[in-house]
Amino acid sequence: MSPNPFAIVATDPASAARAGVLQTARGPVLTPTFMPVGTRASVKAVGPDDLRAVGAQIVLANTYHLALRPGAELIRSLGGVQRFMGWDGPVLTDSGGYQVYSLRDTRQMSPEGIRFASVYDGSKFFLSPEKAVEAQTALGSDIMMCLDECTPYPATEREAQISMDLTFKWAERSRASWDERGPGLLFGIAQGSFYPKLRTESAQALASLDFPGYAAGGLALGEPPAARREAIAASFLGLPELKPRYLMGLGTPLDLLEGIKMGADLFDCVMPSRNARNGQLFTARGKINIDNSRHRDDSGPVDPNCPCYCCRTFSRAYLRHLHRNREPLFPRLATIHNLSFYLSIVHGARESLLKGEFPCYYKELYEALTQR
Amino acid sequence: MSPNPFAIVATDPASAARAGVLQTARGPVLTPTFMPVGTRASVKAVGPDDLRAVGAQIVLANTYHLALRPGAELIRSLGGVQRFMGWDGPVLTDSGGYQVYSLRDTRQMSPEGIRFASVYDGSKFFLSPEKAVEAQTALGSDIMMCLDECTPYPATEREAQISMDLTFKWAERSRASWDERGPGLLFGIAQGSFYPKLRTESAQALASLDFPGYAAGGLALGEPPAARREAIAASFLGLPELKPRYLMGLGTPLDLLEGIKMGADLFDCVMPSRNARNGQLFTARGKINIDNSRHRDDSGPVDPNCPCYCCRTFSRAYLRHLHRNREPLFPRLATIHNLSFYLSIVHGARESLLKGEFPCYYKELYEALTQR
Repeated sequence: MSPNPFAIVATDPASAARAGVLQTARGPVLTPTFMPVGTRASVKAVGPDDLRAVGAQIVLANTYHLALRPGAELIRSLGGVQRFMGWDGPVLTDSGGYQVYSLRDTRQMSPEGIRFASVYDGSKFFLSPEKAVEAQTALGSDIMMCLDECTPYPATEREAQISMDLTFKWAERSRASWDERGPGLLFGIAQGSFYPKLRTESAQALASLDFPGYAAGGLALGEPPAARREAIAASFLGLPELKPRYLMGLGTPLDLLEGIKMGADLFDCVMPSRNARNGQLFTARGKINIDNSRHRDDSGPVDPNCPCYCCRTFSRAYLRHLHRNREPLFPRLATIHNLSFYLSIVHGARESLLKGEFPCYYKELYEALTQR
Repeated sequence: MSPNPFAIVATDPASAARAGVLQTARGPVLTPTFMPVGTRASVKAVGPDDLRAVGAQIVLANTYHLALRPGAELIRSLGGVQRFMGWDGPVLTDSGGYQVYSLRDTRQMSPEGIRFASVYDGSKFFLSPEKAVEAQTALGSDIMMCLDECTPYPATEREAQISMDLTFKWAERSRASWDERGPGLLFGIAQGSFYPKLRTESAQALASLDFPGYAAGGLALGEPPAARREAIAASFLGLPELKPRYLMGLGTPLDLLEGIKMGADLFDCVMPSRNARNGQLFTARGKINIDNSRHRDDSGPVDPNCPCYCCRTFSRAYLRHLHRNREPLFPRLATIHNLSFYLSIVHGARESLLKGEFPCYYKELYEALTQR
């Protein structure tokens, strides 16, 4: 049995929500939490100082991109991805499985692995389950992900089954090539598209391989929210209760709240940072588009209840001015705010769980996020 | 007589260099110092937190740009340009005189003022000496600049004389429309192109108008360094010893060092921030281009002697990776470093003046900056 890096410290009797502590080689991660996405070892437009200030505990980076540029061995020689990016906390690396989905026009799948044409220079790049573990080990990842096939949406049940079987075989090979004694944890990824039966089967099969943690992948690909919730519930049904659960690629603030209620511990999504760069800012009263002319002379902050540097220091009028003039400071400030908002949701949920007040927290935030 | 906001606290017996304290409505500015350029009320890619951390004391903003977008009255209604940009120190505003030079294809000059076509939407915009003071007063500027004609280089002596005479008439009108009892100081600008006689005449005429401070404008427009030095010396010859002197638009690290030796107190230039965004980083051993392949696996900082956040935290290899991948974090980190380097030059000069060691400081830095 692999050791369990996860301890549950509080649960909600009325739902599957839980608060936990995930031990990594670079310290504990208090869950539930949200991982800002730093695809190329940089969360776009913000520094590690900003990430620390908004309460980020763990950051995501991408194996596919870093293996191509600047190269996993180069990062190893520079002390690992954490030192490389100046981040003194843990890093989770995605395996490249998402690129199987997002770059499906430029890759060839085989049972052995995936042949990509590099997005940078078109050169050939081969990724197998073993190579993904090897690259993530070179990167010094604290949490490595198994290479999987992120099944596109929609898929027929037959397609989903074939894809999920491949992902399972790759999980076996990943597990076999992983050095359990090394510092990095390896998480398996359950697939199964939006067929609840397949979702549960995929999770159960994966669980038989005994990973330190598990993820549900292939979500947030355009499916309706109800289908997503059902897929998540079915995945979690097949996973061991006491191991950490990571919902990959999710999502909206409501997705986070719902995911926590269903028992998810870790989240990641480009939405807060990408939307920030486009001028869309999240608040508990809904999203605002900073370009809207009603913010032209608004001396108030984006969110009066937000303690982030952006809200403490700058008016909506100033942020609108920066965005309209494409000032490069805007993406930083907007990203700081959106990440701060996302982290306030997950960390507020944790606090409420520790106090036994999650139902109340859920209800209030649900109403605020869905009003109008 | 207008009150003198400036006190000289140390001088170098071997040169015209001096250390001073310039009192503004938002606190003292220790000179010599360098003012980062925040044309649109934002120093590109860095926040006021970064500016404070690199040692900036006063920031420059541009009247022409802010009057067009978002409008001087809007900024007044939001509490002034300092509050608008979240900067708790003084701000100097350029008058729009530089745009007379830089936008000379889209403006019409007359003795009355300048008619611009807005760079944003082509709409007409009229700037006169009186309107420039009015707009800067609305912005809440701590140091306002007189509207001038920044004479292009090269110019014939006749052209330079006509331009300088117009600038003087505008300085008279600016002085007359300025409220001495208000919080903002008004600085006059000497022109005269690269004719030493005109430079001195322009400065003397300006001095007769009794401003709280003076600038030499029309420099760094492509002239040879020797011509520049001569023009600066000739300008300063005509200016009162005890008032602050601002060298507009300068320059390279060597320009700063030479300028201080000649008795300049304030500098501004886009070079450190613009070059940063292009991947050019300054060090006491010369400039480096971060894209150069020799930095590919360099685990050392840009400058081992630099205490800035960028040098304390990140390797050249990481910065090269960020720049090659156009990661939006790069401009921030590079700008932090370059501004830190510029400010270390001027503040190092001040320290050496206070200790009576300026000749030694000058010699060492001069040799470092001109080696090879």
